[in-house]
Amino acid sequence: MKGYLISVEGSDGSGKSTQLQNIIAYLQQKQVDLVVTREPGGTTLSEAIRALLLDATYTEMTAKTEMLLYAASRAQHVEQKIMPALQQGKVVVTDRFTDSSIAYQGYGRELGDMVEKVNEIATGGCQPDLTIFLDLPPQQGILRKRQEQNHTMDRLELEKLAFHEKVYAGYQALYQKQPNRICCIDASQNVENVFAQIQKQIDALLGL
Amino acid sequence: MKGYLISVEGSDGSGKSTQLQNIIAYLQQKQVDLVVTREPGGTTLSEAIRALLLDATYTEMTAKTEMLLYAASRAQHVEQKIMPALQQGKVVVTDRFTDSSIAYQGYGRELGDMVEKVNEIATGGCQPDLTIFLDLPPQQGILRKRQEQNHTMDRLELEKLAFHEKVYAGYQALYQKQPNRICCIDASQNVENVFAQIQKQIDALLGL
Repeated sequence: MKGYLISVEGSDGSGKSTQLQNIIAYLQQKQVDLVVTREPGGTTLSEAIRALLLDATYTEMTAKTEMLLYAASRAQHVEQKIMPALQQGKVVVTDRFTDSSIAYQGYGRELGDMVEKVNEIATGGCQPDLTIFLDLPPQQGILRKRQEQNHTMDRLELEKLAFHEKVYAGYQALYQKQPNRICCIDASQNVENVFAQIQKQIDALLGL
Repeated sequence: MKGYLISVEGSDGSGKSTQLQNIIAYLQQKQVDLVVTREPGGTTLSEAIRALLLDATYTEMTAKTEMLLYAASRAQHVEQKIMPALQQGKVVVTDRFTDSSIAYQGYGRELGDMVEKVNEIATGGCQPDLTIFLDLPPQQGILRKRQEQNHTMDRLELEKLAFHEKVYAGYQALYQKQPNRICCIDASQNVENVFAQIQKQIDALLGL
């Protein structure tokens, strides 16, 4: 038996959470044997590592430490949860996977190729069969967030924009390299149109 | 200014703690500008990662996760504490460094070459100028511990012996490869003789 690993990637404001809910509801309705998970996290230990990663008091955390903690969390996630599920023929849907590290740490933090090398080791080469990338330029994502919350951008948010532009360039580079695995969907469309395109990809992968 | 990094390596029962105290007392007496640190740990964040690594409830921790957590802890330690001290011309003495990961995870857990690759990334190539390896075959180390505590070896300790024999073989292999950096000292001798040999190495390195 061989399962399928589907990852969903996208930045703030791209509608990732909404589309994840749509994907899960659709696969449940189709009675697919499903495991829903997320990164960083997915296991007790990986969630403990997540807590370190998201703890705002660790302002001194270096880019390499961050990258290696994500990789440690992912190694545990793959070996303890993802691989056993795939071996049982299940469909695993994960909110983020290795592409996030390459985009955020490799491009955003400018660590470059080392991120791919470390993650190849962490995952043992485990790659998604399909990656849904919700493509929205960071300016638009922030615009959506701003409209939601009706607030003026401060210095930090502007700094974040420069960071998110590097991350976005990273996702684009990944898509250029692996267009067969990564499905790039224009997330500026309405929710229904975006999901219609996701559904088409999932149907093709799983033969639904 | 260029400081010096000295690491001390050795297994249970090799007298590492005693000799570390001797080294520190000696360097303080010589008024060396000293930073004393340890791995895993040495910074607040690295100590938090240490807490995960040593938490006995994470029985599910995979070998790769363990190795990557050590590397994350080391990356933070090098960038935040060791490199700045070396750049200020200080002498840094660390209880364990990369060799421990190669011996314990590379050989003991049989992860092989990937440990060296990940640590090369984690440390940015930062290597000790001198490594003191307190060489004691694991059987003798366990014998010392047994004599101390007057107890019978159980199944787990016997299993540990097999593990520690692999770790010991790892240290031997490291020493064969880098005899100039690693100073292998027969730790079966008495404390004074062992320290006399350590002192000779430190004097030669620091010109004392």
